Amino acid sequence: MTPHSPIDFRTEPSRYRHWRIEPDGEVAYLVMDVRPDGGLSDAYELKLNSYDLAVDIELNDAVQRLRFEHPQVRTVVIKSGKDNVFCAGANIRMLGKATHGHKVNFCKFTNETRLAIEDACTNSKQTYLAAVNGSCAGGGYELALAADHIMLVDDRRSTVSLPETPLLAVLPGTGGLTRVTDKRKVRRDLADVFCSVEEGVRGQKAVDWRLVDEVVPKSKWDDAVSVRAHALAARSDRPADAKGVTLGSLERRIEADAIIYPHVRVELARDRGLATVTVQAPAGPPPVSLEAAHALGAAFWPLAVAREFEDALLHLRFNEPLLGLIVLRTEGDPQRVIDHDGFLVRHGDDWLMREIRHYVKRVLKRLDVTSRSLIATIEPGSCFAGTLAELAFAADRSVMLIGSRDGDNQPPAALVLGEANFGLYPMGNGLTRLETRFLGEPDSVERARSQIGTPLEAEDAAALGLITQACESFDWDDELRVTFEARTSFSPDALTGMEANLRFAGPETMETKIFGRLTAWQNWIFQRPNSVGAHGALKLYGSGIKPTFDQERI
Amino acid sequence: MTPHSPIDFRTEPSRYRHWRIEPDGEVAYLVMDVRPDGGLSDAYELKLNSYDLAVDIELNDAVQRLRFEHPQVRTVVIKSGKDNVFCAGANIRMLGKATHGHKVNFCKFTNETRLAIEDACTNSKQTYLAAVNGSCAGGGYELALAADHIMLVDDRRSTVSLPETPLLAVLPGTGGLTRVTDKRKVRRDLADVFCSVEEGVRGQKAVDWRLVDEVVPKSKWDDAVSVRAHALAARSDRPADAKGVTLGSLERRIEADAIIYPHVRVELARDRGLATVTVQAPAGPPPVSLEAAHALGAAFWPLAVAREFEDALLHLRFNEPLLGLIVLRTEGDPQRVIDHDGFLVRHGDDWLMREIRHYVKRVLKRLDVTSRSLIATIEPGSCFAGTLAELAFAADRSVMLIGSRDGDNQPPAALVLGEANFGLYPMGNGLTRLETRFLGEPDSVERARSQIGTPLEAEDAAALGLITQACESFDWDDELRVTFEARTSFSPDALTGMEANLRFAGPETMETKIFGRLTAWQNWIFQRPNSVGAHGALKLYGSGIKPTFDQERI
Repeated sequence: MTPHSPIDFRTEPSRYRHWRIEPDGEVAYLVMDVRPDGGLSDAYELKLNSYDLAVDIELNDAVQRLRFEHPQVRTVVIKSGKDNVFCAGANIRMLGKATHGHKVNFCKFTNETRLAIEDACTNSKQTYLAAVNGSCAGGGYELALAADHIMLVDDRRSTVSLPETPLLAVLPGTGGLTRVTDKRKVRRDLADVFCSVEEGVRGQKAVDWRLVDEVVPKSKWDDAVSVRAHALAARSDRPADAKGVTLGSLERRIEADAIIYPHVRVELARDRGLATVTVQAPAGPPPVSLEAAHALGAAFWPLAVAREFEDALLHLRFNEPLLGLIVLRTEGDPQRVIDHDGFLVRHGDDWLMREIRHYVKRVLKRLDVTSRSLIATIEPGSCFAGTLAELAFAADRSVMLIGSRDGDNQPPAALVLGEANFGLYPMGNGLTRLETRFLGEPDSVERARSQIGTPLEAEDAAALGLITQACESFDWDDELRVTFEARTSFSPDALTGMEANLRFAGPETMETKIFGRLTAWQNWIFQRPNSVGAHGALKLYGSGIKPTFDQERI
Repeated sequence: MTPHSPIDFRTEPSRYRHWRIEPDGEVAYLVMDVRPDGGLSDAYELKLNSYDLAVDIELNDAVQRLRFEHPQVRTVVIKSGKDNVFCAGANIRMLGKATHGHKVNFCKFTNETRLAIEDACTNSKQTYLAAVNGSCAGGGYELALAADHIMLVDDRRSTVSLPETPLLAVLPGTGGLTRVTDKRKVRRDLADVFCSVEEGVRGQKAVDWRLVDEVVPKSKWDDAVSVRAHALAARSDRPADAKGVTLGSLERRIEADAIIYPHVRVELARDRGLATVTVQAPAGPPPVSLEAAHALGAAFWPLAVAREFEDALLHLRFNEPLLGLIVLRTEGDPQRVIDHDGFLVRHGDDWLMREIRHYVKRVLKRLDVTSRSLIATIEPGSCFAGTLAELAFAADRSVMLIGSRDGDNQPPAALVLGEANFGLYPMGNGLTRLETRFLGEPDSVERARSQIGTPLEAEDAAALGLITQACESFDWDDELRVTFEARTSFSPDALTGMEANLRFAGPETMETKIFGRLTAWQNWIFQRPNSVGAHGALKLYGSGIKPTFDQERI
C-alpha cells in the first residue's frame, strides 16, 4: 500500500483533483467531488466521495489556503459535488489494504485537518458549515462534525451515520466518537444506538439527538444554506478588503540522505535510525512595517519556516517510518528570532499575523503528536529562542552544551525566552509547553518569565528547569551517541505509547482525547484479527462473505 | 495461562499467602511477602516479590478489609517482608505466557485496586504510606505511586524504577506513566529519562525529581517510618474506638448456567453470548437504628449486595470472556431501595455508612470500565430506584416496558430517582452518571432532580431522557431479541473501543486517563510483535537472547 515514490503533501488548487474552492464574497464553497481514479493507489476506486490520503492532502491544503489566501471569507460551506451523497467516509478497500502504519498515520493527519477546521472557526473567525446534501457516512460525518454548524437535507435519502462498528469492526476513530459525545454532546445511550445502526439517522430525529443543527426541505435547501452561511459570517471580524497572501509552492530538494528547504534542513542517518532537523533563524531583521510583512507574504520568516518544518515533519512521518528519533537543532542569531516574535506580538491584531501565529501553533502541535522520539540538542551557534525554544520544550528531552567548544570562537549556547513561550502557542491540552512542563511547580513558570530576554547558558537553563541536561563539551559527543543509541535500541511501539502519555500531562481536552484515548483504541482495534485478520471485517468488506469474529471480550 | 478452574476473587486474611496485615493501633503494616510458588499457575515462580493476579486478589481484599474491619487504622504502611527488595513488579514470565485477554483484565483489576488505595486516602482518611525498603521496580513502583506518601531508604540498593520500556518493550501501564506525570507531577523530560533507564533513580535525586517524598538513612528507617505514619494518622477523622465489621465469606453457588448469591443471580446464556444479572431489592425495611445497621454488618443490604455484585462482575470478566453482553435486571420493591438509600444518606457521617457509600461507588465504577456491553431492561416487578437506578445509568442502553403485561397483575415498571443519583456515586470523571448523561443539556439534571421520589413510568422516563427506549409489551420480546442479537453479532473489539469512549464523555481525570488513554496504549503494545511476538521482548526476557524489533514507527 505504501507507494514507492514519496507521498508529497505539497499541492495547490490548480492541481486539485477532488476539491474545488468556490469563493463568493464572504462565503466560500468547498466542494468535495472525489475522482474515483485519483487515489494514492490504483488498488481501489474512490467511489461515492470516499477518500484516501490523496483527498485529505488536498483538503488540508484548502483549509490552510482559505485562511491565508481568502481573508474576506468568513464562512466556508463544505458540500458535495455529487448527487445524493455527501461523503461515504474513508475508502474501505484502501483501509483493508493499507499497512497498520499507513492507517494510523492517515488517521492522525486527517484528525489534524479536522482540528484545523475547528481552529479556523475558533481562532480565525472563519466558520465552517457542513451542508449535508445526501448520505453522509463514517468519515463523512466525522468531517461534518468538524464544522461549527451542520445542516441536513430533510428527505428520505439524506442521513448521517457512523456505521464503522457494525459494518467494519473498527471505530469512527478520526475524532468521531469523541466529537459526538464531547462536541455535539449527544446523550451517551443515543450515541450508542447511533453508532450501532448502519443506516444512520435522518430528519428531525437527527436534530433531536443533537447530531445535526437543523434539517431543511430540499426545496428550500440552497437558500437556507446561503442564509445560514451569511448569518454565520456576520459573527466574524475578518477584514472585508484585505489582500490575501498566496502560499507559493514550497522549495524543496530531496537528496539521498537529506531534504533541503530554504530554512530547514533534514539529514537522514538511516544507519543510525535518526533524522536531524535543523531550523535556521531569520537571515535578517523583521520587516520595517506591517505593510512590508504583508508584501513579503509567504517569504516572511515565521510563515516560511513553519511551512517548511511542517512539510518536513509530514514527510518523515509517512516516508521515513524507520527513523524513530528526530534530533531537533537550530542555527542562527537568537535575537533575530526574538525580534520576529516581537513583530508578531506587536501586530497581533492584524489578520495575517494572527493567521501566522495560529499556524505556527498548529505546526508545533503536529510535533507534539508525532510518534517519534524528539531530542533537542542545544549547541553554540544555535538559536533556541522564543518560538524556536518551543522546539526544545516540545522535545522529550533536551541536552545543552556547557560553555564553548575548544578551539571554537563561537560564544556559549544560550536559550532565550520570549513572550512567545508564555501563551502564543498553547498545546492541545490548553496549556503552554512551559505550563505543562512545570505542572508540579507552577512557580517555575513565573521564575522563567522573569528571565525573558536574558540569554541563559546551559547551567542557568538547567537550574531553571528549562533543559533536561547540561553537558560538558568533552562529554558531548559520547553523551549524544549513547543517548541516541539507547533510544533507537528500544521497541518503537513502547516508545510511541510512552511518549503519547508523558507528553500530555495534566488536563485533557477534546483534542487530546481524540489523539490520546480514541486514537489509541482505534490503533488497538486496527491490530486485531477481528478487523484486519483474513476473516476480519475490513478484509472481507464487499466480498459478500460475513466476517467471523473471535467472541472473546478483552 | 487461563486456568481451568475459575479464578476466585474471594479470600480472607487467614488464607493469604502473599500479604500480612499487622495492625498496630492507628497504624497497620501491610507486608508484602510473596510466596514464589503461590501464583495462579505453576508455569512461573513469583521471585523477588513479583506478583501475578493471585497476589493482587489478596491485596484488593486487604485494602477492602482495612477500611471495614479496622476503623481505628488511620495509616497503612505498605512494606516488604523481604530483604533488599520492595517489589519487582508484575511477574514477567507470567506476562510472557498470559493470553492478551488475561493481561488486559489483570492490568484493569490491578488499576482498580490502586485506585481503591487512593480512594481510601481521599475518602476514608485511611492514608497509605509506601515504605520502600529495597529495590522497587515497575509494578512495584506503580504500587508505591498509589500511596499518598513515598519514603525510600537512602542506600545504594534502594531504587525506584520503571524499566518496562527498556527491558520489556511494554509500558508501566497500570497507572505508572499517568501517576508519574499527573499525580507526582514529575517534569515530563525527567519522566522520560526515568522511564528509559533500567537501573532507576535513588537517593536525593529521587526526591529532587519528585519520584518519592523523602529519603531516610537505613539506620533511622524504622523510626522515621513510624513517625511519618503517626503524623499522617493525625490528619484522619477515623474513629478510635469503633468496632469493625467483618466481611464474612461470600455465599455463592456456581451452577452450569448460573451463579447464585443471596441478592444477585447471574444467568449465563452461552449460546446467545450473554449473561443476565438480576439484583434483588432488600427483603425488608432498613434497620431501625444506626446501631442495628452496625449489628447487621456485612448482612446490611447495601453492603451485601455490593459485595455480591462485585464478585459476579469480576467472575464474568475473568471466567466468562465469551459473554459479550451483560443484561442488567432488578427485582423487588423500589421503595425499599429508596428507604435504604435514605438511611445511608441520613447517617452519612457514620464511618461505616461512609465506607459503604464509597464501596458502592467503587463497584459501580467497576461496571463503568467493564468491557462488556451493558443493557438494562426495566420491567414490571423491577426496582431501578436510587442506587439501583445507577445500573440503568451505567448501562450503554436501557429499555423499559410501557404499562403492564397482558394477564400480569403487577403494576407497570417505574423508575424512581433518589438523592443517591445526584452525587453519592460519582464516576471516574468526577461527574454523576446523570451529569455525564446530560452533558449537552444540564437543565435535564435539574428536571430529573425535581422528580425525586416520583415513580416514573416508561413514557415519562423517556420524556425525561432517563431511558433509551420505551417499548410496548407486545414488542418487548422481539425488540430485546433483535437488540441482543445485533449487539452480540458485532466485533467484540470494536464494541470494547466504542464503549470505552462513549461512556466517558466530558472531563478526564487521572483515573479516566489511566483507563482510557494509558490502558489503550498498553493494550495496543500488548498486541504488537515487538513485545509479544516470537522475537519480542516479553517472550525473550530472561532467555539471554536479545529481542529483534521491527523498527517501523507507528
